[in-house]
Amino acid sequence: MFIAFEGIEGCGKTTVARMLAEWMIGRGLNPLQTREPGGSELGRELRRVLLDPSRPAISREAELFLFLADRAQHTRDIIRPALTTGRPVICDRFADSTVAYQGYGRGMNLAELEYLNKISTGDLWPDIVFLLDLPVALGLERVKKRLRATGESDEGRFDNETKEFHERIRSGFLEIAAKNPGRVKIIDASASPDEILDKCLSRLPRFPSVA
Amino acid sequence: MFIAFEGIEGCGKTTVARMLAEWMIGRGLNPLQTREPGGSELGRELRRVLLDPSRPAISREAELFLFLADRAQHTRDIIRPALTTGRPVICDRFADSTVAYQGYGRGMNLAELEYLNKISTGDLWPDIVFLLDLPVALGLERVKKRLRATGESDEGRFDNETKEFHERIRSGFLEIAAKNPGRVKIIDASASPDEILDKCLSRLPRFPSVA
Repeated sequence: MFIAFEGIEGCGKTTVARMLAEWMIGRGLNPLQTREPGGSELGRELRRVLLDPSRPAISREAELFLFLADRAQHTRDIIRPALTTGRPVICDRFADSTVAYQGYGRGMNLAELEYLNKISTGDLWPDIVFLLDLPVALGLERVKKRLRATGESDEGRFDNETKEFHERIRSGFLEIAAKNPGRVKIIDASASPDEILDKCLSRLPRFPSVA
Repeated sequence: MFIAFEGIEGCGKTTVARMLAEWMIGRGLNPLQTREPGGSELGRELRRVLLDPSRPAISREAELFLFLADRAQHTRDIIRPALTTGRPVICDRFADSTVAYQGYGRGMNLAELEYLNKISTGDLWPDIVFLLDLPVALGLERVKKRLRATGESDEGRFDNETKEFHERIRSGFLEIAAKNPGRVKIIDASASPDEILDKCLSRLPRFPSVA
């Protein structure tokens, strides 16, 4: 089972992905928890390049190809091998983020992005995508709180985008969900992490308990 | 005028590109001499990633996307601005290298690569491509001599490929030339650099002298 979490900045996906992994471990499963960008060794170098807010502007095309390079390596080196051995994979962002950010956010051609995602993933898709949806203002407020708490920025270059940019991402994700109702489940993410996790669990197919 | 040099390792393109730039400077022109990968600030980071022979295997898809990211940034940040101000641009490798190496060399789909090149370059093509052609054995011998002289490897990860790989690249470049006779000029590169430069100059359209 391949599960991805998607959503705007501050939607809580990193926290809830970790909680879902812990829930699985508690049931005797051995999930792989990973993320994009940065799920492979190559990806960790690319993540530094992609998210560094001090870096001079990267063109939207170069940015796109770096995300696709990260995903190609991540899918082949990390995700597929884990799935092959029967481990559940929980991924913080995957191919839908490219359509939401580079397509709806930066205005690149959606059909082109679908095609590029297919090359990048070798046509591997998550069995289920939890789209953690919440108002942009609430998401950005959560990011600010996190920055105040930790004193550092994790996704800097995207945090500095305008509110309108993030609104386009949110609507984009909702359109992706509308087009892919079987794969993408919209989860109200304005609640607490525990409540979000419960909603995700209720949408999961019955999971075999190994314990 | 946008001029690219292409060819297998050891074909002499870096040397001849520099000599052509010097020839232009001698005629009062102000050429931009650049290269791929590594023509932009982002590209120099990617070049280190792409050509480091000590790095664990990069999948062919990830490799492809990194070259395309390099080219997208290079085209927009460096090549187009120079052409816009009227400077001639001389580039050591460009989009045909992707078709030759990732297509003919690594077996990726050629039509897919043409499409990806188009996204990456924004459909900017060199006015003329000099394909410096020579037997693979001679090229690899030149690379070895250079390594003995300098004590370092410049294009390490590709130098370590098999002779058959380089044979496929050479044939690939010749096929690209056959398909694009207007743009790509085959130059016999088994001669000395001075002779190669003369052959290139004889194929150049009449160049305005600013001197």
